[in-house]
Amino acid sequence: MSPDEKWLAAAIELAVRNVGEGGGPFSAMIVTEGTLVSTGCNRVTRDNDPTAHAEVVAIRAACRARGDFSLAGATLYASCEPCPLCLAAALWARVDRVAYAADRHDAARGGFDDREFYDLFARDWATWTMTVEALAAPNSAEPFDAWLANPDRVEY
Amino acid sequence: MSPDEKWLAAAIELAVRNVGEGGGPFSAMIVTEGTLVSTGCNRVTRDNDPTAHAEVVAIRAACRARGDFSLAGATLYASCEPCPLCLAAALWARVDRVAYAADRHDAARGGFDDREFYDLFARDWATWTMTVEALAAPNSAEPFDAWLANPDRVEY
Repeated sequence: MSPDEKWLAAAIELAVRNVGEGGGPFSAMIVTEGTLVSTGCNRVTRDNDPTAHAEVVAIRAACRARGDFSLAGATLYASCEPCPLCLAAALWARVDRVAYAADRHDAARGGFDDREFYDLFARDWATWTMTVEALAAPNSAEPFDAWLANPDRVEY
Repeated sequence: MSPDEKWLAAAIELAVRNVGEGGGPFSAMIVTEGTLVSTGCNRVTRDNDPTAHAEVVAIRAACRARGDFSLAGATLYASCEPCPLCLAAALWARVDRVAYAADRHDAARGGFDDREFYDLFARDWATWTMTVEALAAPNSAEPFDAWLANPDRVEY
């Protein structure tokens, strides 16, 4: 077994186990230089947190463990293709690499909206059921003015 | 002032204040039937959590307050256009509506990658710096098989 195969097999096993514990069928792991930093399982319904996807949970745990908001150099292994939420989380976490096993079509078979949400992202927001609208606000630039004027700001 | 204007002005004010407290220049609020359910501010660098965007923080807090993983019927107000992470979180949280003030170009002026990540989402993953790859795993379907075989599963 290659390291990739080993980590993905472990993630898949963890995802199966998570179903038995009342979670969703998803698991993820953060690995740096061959070492496991964190694991995460889907806890959306158990924790009443729609953002508690496996990858998000694993990223948050790895950042806590490393005391860093960047996971540069890390690989995110996921039992299933990350949804847009999780892929964006991986981008913001600056991981080097995402590797996954099952895909959005497998997730759709399980009744999950990952594929639908990718389809939405490829379409104009005006076509969505969820309304997304920009509203004029006279002082909308003020937070960024305050940010740029703050010499102690920590960029990410 | 319309209710929309009032909530966005409050979110913008909160975002400005958050900069003074060492956070990023973003804030969000969850409102249902004219009532504030939760607020959230960007805490990425303060909390070492790359997913602690204002909208994600507000969504998590609102779900905790309501004891529910769905925010159907709610509006998410954001001082700035939600990035792909936050827009996907809004979709998963099933909010009815997202209304925002500043946009991705304002965020880019502040040095944030929201616009860049939207551009990435519109391009083939093969062109990204972050590697995203599907790997064959013989048992990749097992988590979904276990899920569908679980009569107690809670769908979302």
